[in-house]
Amino acid sequence: MSAVSRVMIEVGWGDCDPAEIVFYPNYFKWFDVGTHHLLATAGLALGALRERYGIVGVPLLEAQASFVKPSRYGERIAVESQILEVNPKTFRVGHEIFNHGELVVRGAELRAWVGYDPEDDTRLRALPIPAEVRSRLLAERA
Amino acid sequence: MSAVSRVMIEVGWGDCDPAEIVFYPNYFKWFDVGTHHLLATAGLALGALRERYGIVGVPLLEAQASFVKPSRYGERIAVESQILEVNPKTFRVGHEIFNHGELVVRGAELRAWVGYDPEDDTRLRALPIPAEVRSRLLAERA
Amino acid sequence: MSAVSRVMIEVGWGDCDPAEIVFYPNYFKWFDVGTHHLLATAGLALGALRERYGIVGVPLLEAQASFVKPSRYGERIAVESQILEVNPKTFRVGHEIFNHGELVVRGAELRAWVGYDPEDDTRLRALPIPAEVRSRLLAERA
Amino acid sequence: MSAVSRVMIEVGWGDCDPAEIVFYPNYFKWFDVGTHHLLATAGLALGALRERYGIVGVPLLEAQASFVKPSRYGERIAVESQILEVNPKTFRVGHEIFNHGELVVRGAELRAWVGYDPEDDTRLRALPIPAEVRSRLLAERA
Repeated sequence: MSAVSRVMIEVGWGDCDPAEIVFYPNYFKWFDVGTHHLLATAGLALGALRERYGIVGVPLLEAQASFVKPSRYGERIAVESQILEVNPKTFRVGHEIFNHGELVVRGAELRAWVGYDPEDDTRLRALPIPAEVRSRLLAERA
Repeated sequence: MSAVSRVMIEVGWGDCDPAEIVFYPNYFKWFDVGTHHLLATAGLALGALRERYGIVGVPLLEAQASFVKPSRYGERIAVESQILEVNPKTFRVGHEIFNHGELVVRGAELRAWVGYDPEDDTRLRALPIPAEVRSRLLAERA
Repeated sequence: MSAVSRVMIEVGWGDCDPAEIVFYPNYFKWFDVGTHHLLATAGLALGALRERYGIVGVPLLEAQASFVKPSRYGERIAVESQILEVNPKTFRVGHEIFNHGELVVRGAELRAWVGYDPEDDTRLRALPIPAEVRSRLLAERA
Repeated sequence: MSAVSRVMIEVGWGDCDPAEIVFYPNYFKWFDVGTHHLLATAGLALGALRERYGIVGVPLLEAQASFVKPSRYGERIAVESQILEVNPKTFRVGHEIFNHGELVVRGAELRAWVGYDPEDDTRLRALPIPAEVRSRLLAERA
């Protein structure tokens, strides 16, 4: 059963710049919030994954966004996130942000399953996603 | 005479997340710093552009990054930025981030020359880049 | 009728630092969110105040916080805000943050009613709070 | 030999809000940068302290600031930081921010020497500052 995670964000005063629109790196912060919410919804809250599998996190390999229309202070936006792709060591998450029902930002993140290198514990490296995690991610895939 | 702008950043404690690496939206904040520095170097400081041409800014249409290797608290990174492309209403800026000489992040921003719509001053829209600005941007192009 | 505004925040991955606790400037960002929510609840949304009275905002003269206990990624915290004091040109807002019912942060902001100086429009200055705004703030006072 | 640490910051576009002045939580981010720089200058870089003493960091017990005058996009400000007080488990850092030689923000942080509780490793607690660290902090005291 695939699913779209949805998080509502109210654009704060400090999220906007002197052009009185959202300062763009904040959209990536909200993509990150969307991914964490999506994972938690799938029973894969990052805190639990770190404890259970010893990974440090699911850091980014790539991120990309198209900004269709600006959003402003006080507006409520919806961040909709879904799994697009699951690979042996990585997965791709798609994000769409809506402002009053209108698509205003669209983007994606490619993330890796990352822990310390078993052969050199000062280095991070992408590791194979465990089968049970993989199957939950696949179940969430759009 | 083309030019690469270079800004040195020291990765702060608060720039890093519980995985002890830079929280990725910060790289886009540093891309933004790089673009502003590049513009200022070309005699196109945004404050002056806003006053002179009445634009609100040069907001993003697209942004993209590949994260090759993580950076950590206390490391000094160099953000190198250059104009890749100048179009009638937009321009593209390329960014490369180096950590001890090694390329760790590469990305780009597509930005528009944006002001209030002359026919509806509640709306923002992309406007033609003035000829003198365009020629300075072209002179900086890689 | 006095009132306490209450905003729920979920602590994000990027809100925490390598000590795996909230990076402290974020608490002030949440105080700011609390103040804006409190004002909106009192019919004093900042966007409307700016349009109606021509002020630029309600910037800070002082801010202060005591951090009783750290909060962590994924925890839901409640930011409770209330008007403590209303002066001719300034007002004080008190904030308490609760994590699972326990007080974890307590602080306050002193803010001014600020617009451009009528005699020098490049300078900001504190201006008298209009009577109708003042009476609404007083009605919200704890 | 007492010392004042000094960090230059260029106010970024995204550091400012729609009032076109610095969004105030950023000053606390810069206080944090000032403290880390001061510690590093004293031979107490936090990364090294974490490795050597097993602490998680030096989180805040209290923070406070007075905002004398706003700063704006593109302005260069100097963050001057110094040790004000050294206690058995805590120390106080004073910060002054100057914009073109004029004092624009003044504040302080009370920080604790914090590690995991030896009797309950899920809890953080303030621990005695080791003698050698204490003497270096005292040497830096204003």
